[in-house]
Amino acid sequence: MFSYVTKGLPASVSFEALGAMTGQTVKLKGMLYKIREMSDFAFVILRGPRSLLQCVYAPESASFPLSMLREGMAVAVTGDVVAEPRSKTGFEVRLRETEVLSEPVEETPVVINGKEVSASLETLLDYRPLTLRNEKERAIFKVQEGICAGFRKFFYENGFTEIHSPKIVRSGAEGGANIFTLDYFGAPAYLAQSPQFYKQAMVGVYERVYEIGPVFRAEKHDTSRHINEYTSVDFEMGFLNSFEELMETETAMLSQTLSFLAEHYAPELTLLNAKLPRCESVPRIRFMEAKELLERECGMEIDDYEDFSPEEEKRLCEEVERHTGSEFVFVTHYKSSKRPFYAMDSAEEPELTESFDLLFRGMEITTGGQRIHGYAEQVEKMRARGMEPEHFESYLMAHKYGLPPHGGLGLGLERFTAKLLGFQNVRRATLFPRDINRLEP
Amino acid sequence: MFSYVTKGLPASVSFEALGAMTGQTVKLKGMLYKIREMSDFAFVILRGPRSLLQCVYAPESASFPLSMLREGMAVAVTGDVVAEPRSKTGFEVRLRETEVLSEPVEETPVVINGKEVSASLETLLDYRPLTLRNEKERAIFKVQEGICAGFRKFFYENGFTEIHSPKIVRSGAEGGANIFTLDYFGAPAYLAQSPQFYKQAMVGVYERVYEIGPVFRAEKHDTSRHINEYTSVDFEMGFLNSFEELMETETAMLSQTLSFLAEHYAPELTLLNAKLPRCESVPRIRFMEAKELLERECGMEIDDYEDFSPEEEKRLCEEVERHTGSEFVFVTHYKSSKRPFYAMDSAEEPELTESFDLLFRGMEITTGGQRIHGYAEQVEKMRARGMEPEHFESYLMAHKYGLPPHGGLGLGLERFTAKLLGFQNVRRATLFPRDINRLEP
Repeated sequence: MFSYVTKGLPASVSFEALGAMTGQTVKLKGMLYKIREMSDFAFVILRGPRSLLQCVYAPESASFPLSMLREGMAVAVTGDVVAEPRSKTGFEVRLRETEVLSEPVEETPVVINGKEVSASLETLLDYRPLTLRNEKERAIFKVQEGICAGFRKFFYENGFTEIHSPKIVRSGAEGGANIFTLDYFGAPAYLAQSPQFYKQAMVGVYERVYEIGPVFRAEKHDTSRHINEYTSVDFEMGFLNSFEELMETETAMLSQTLSFLAEHYAPELTLLNAKLPRCESVPRIRFMEAKELLERECGMEIDDYEDFSPEEEKRLCEEVERHTGSEFVFVTHYKSSKRPFYAMDSAEEPELTESFDLLFRGMEITTGGQRIHGYAEQVEKMRARGMEPEHFESYLMAHKYGLPPHGGLGLGLERFTAKLLGFQNVRRATLFPRDINRLEP
Repeated sequence: MFSYVTKGLPASVSFEALGAMTGQTVKLKGMLYKIREMSDFAFVILRGPRSLLQCVYAPESASFPLSMLREGMAVAVTGDVVAEPRSKTGFEVRLRETEVLSEPVEETPVVINGKEVSASLETLLDYRPLTLRNEKERAIFKVQEGICAGFRKFFYENGFTEIHSPKIVRSGAEGGANIFTLDYFGAPAYLAQSPQFYKQAMVGVYERVYEIGPVFRAEKHDTSRHINEYTSVDFEMGFLNSFEELMETETAMLSQTLSFLAEHYAPELTLLNAKLPRCESVPRIRFMEAKELLERECGMEIDDYEDFSPEEEKRLCEEVERHTGSEFVFVTHYKSSKRPFYAMDSAEEPELTESFDLLFRGMEITTGGQRIHGYAEQVEKMRARGMEPEHFESYLMAHKYGLPPHGGLGLGLERFTAKLLGFQNVRRATLFPRDINRLEP
């Protein structure tokens, strides 16, 4: 009656492992990336999960006509691995047989098998499932995988517990009108702008927690730095002595992740011509000092002392790099009026907060800070802002029954990826971006 | 002008490391979990991130009055590590000094510092930020973290690329009315019921992909097995020879993850009295044979030959375990009419699909199968179902330009966690459940 399924994965030879198999006949599967016909033979380039493989078709050794092959096919080929110093990998595969596993019905509307895809960002995104098949385009999200893997390794080794907080919520954590509304069985609900409330609650449980997940902002901005759904890397940690420990922790997280990338994602970084920054020691500057620096050293006219404009962020980063050599800079002590109700005010300067942003290559990639942990203090700050603590009972439960001093931060995964790879637009580093004009693919 | 932030984490001694520090004076931070007054001394139990620590307060050695302490406080204590065979850990800490870092304003409305929390599931959930502070309750989500870590390890080692697909979508992948609607800048949009379309597209890019993320189902069911937002563990793999390879891969994934849990999460599994199942070889049975088995061996009256009722799933699992000893069973070859439009029909029996569910301890935890990879075949199946392929252009882009034979599955993280820990209700294994009656905390 029963047959049994045992554990196992389909056997396959990885393209990378072939170098050691010179002289052997192998069977390989891959997507037919490119056919380059020469006078009496042809190069047939196969695309594997992470690399391309040069195969050679010669009529005298192959049992099938070259006309059988078309770019875009999924094939299983049999061939001989031979040393070939002129190949980038030092070897190539001489084809004997081919089995066609699937075929495309049309030629691609965009050329995807060149060194890069020559198309506008809009076209890249319109045809994302297709344009990502280009070896350089797809390297972007392989690096992004590496960033997440590096972060998770750091979190795991440092006692952060992973949580999965709900994305459908009763009330927004970040305030403001930038929140998507949902019909939840007839009642209004919202899409979470951040896991803020939940990660604070979980500090009371596990001390250190993290989450890498989607967050939603209904911002109507149509800029190169905003998208309406992004992946937020959030952590929160208890028993904090000062908000400086958060910056130290983020510095360690970034530094270790950059090393992890260098070690495991070199092929993709090379393809993308990416230069990894150093992150051993990050300069920091107070918000008001940064404004003064922009005025004094860059001759900028400052008309807003509450926040930075994109241009100011860019100039500040350039200025910091010129002075210190660092491509990262922490800006600290933002005004209380510009930070959320849960931000801890500075004891010495109560109009400022124990908070920071991290700027990298001209753009803010992280917002963080110490939070209020005392119940009375939190209720008071809410009231002072015209909020009704009664509406936040489930949030305040953590404070009411005891919560250690704590803080945390959120890092935008797509922004960090974009800046790491030198992109101007965050959409290039977003797998399937959502913005005010785009809901597909 | 600049000061520098260097990498580093706040130094702290883990409770687990204390055993090796007998004779030393240590400074520790933790939450004050429980005070047990004896005739001339008191036990003071501290709660750390993963374990409890027995401290002893004696008036002759402590520099502070016991009355200073209250359950729920965050404290930093100084004390001497001494061997104590009667303590579970073999040592205890004799308190000298205490610094109070924060304090609760009220006593908890539910007792949380017993061996377990004696409360209904509703109460457990109503006070989740609080009840999770209980050492047994919080062990649930530590195990859940371990499940994800085990899965990710498997994916990483086997060449699966992690993706982050969008949760706001133009059209639902799973069809039906069970979809949440959203106002997206004046246009209708939906919350993704699964990453199906995106993971299939990404098979055309990376061959093997996975995602662990939230999915949303607007089901009006109010049962112990349904929630409206859950964490789906999805993978999809290309160059599939048959859908059986998917079951083999899942068997390997589960088997390795169970070993990973046994190795790294033993304290939590012990607290929860959880018995890990074996998953070396999983029996499988065709859907219709399973129905016959239920009729014949269990004497059940079957009135629906399309799907299982919860009772049938339960009885089937019992029956399979009785025959084979396995707590897992794959049910295969579901009817085409009951599977989505992207399911591949069986070549020999076109009214059936190359699909399966995995049942575990009485509940379906996975749905998977081979997908249609041919463009013409997919368009035809859509038309036969009255769907308009023109509305799915961005989905069909992957098929049109060539997609290898492929398939995949989705596993419900909360259901798997619940069944692994022997819970009747999936909500117990959901950090902050969302259902038709619950949107908070």
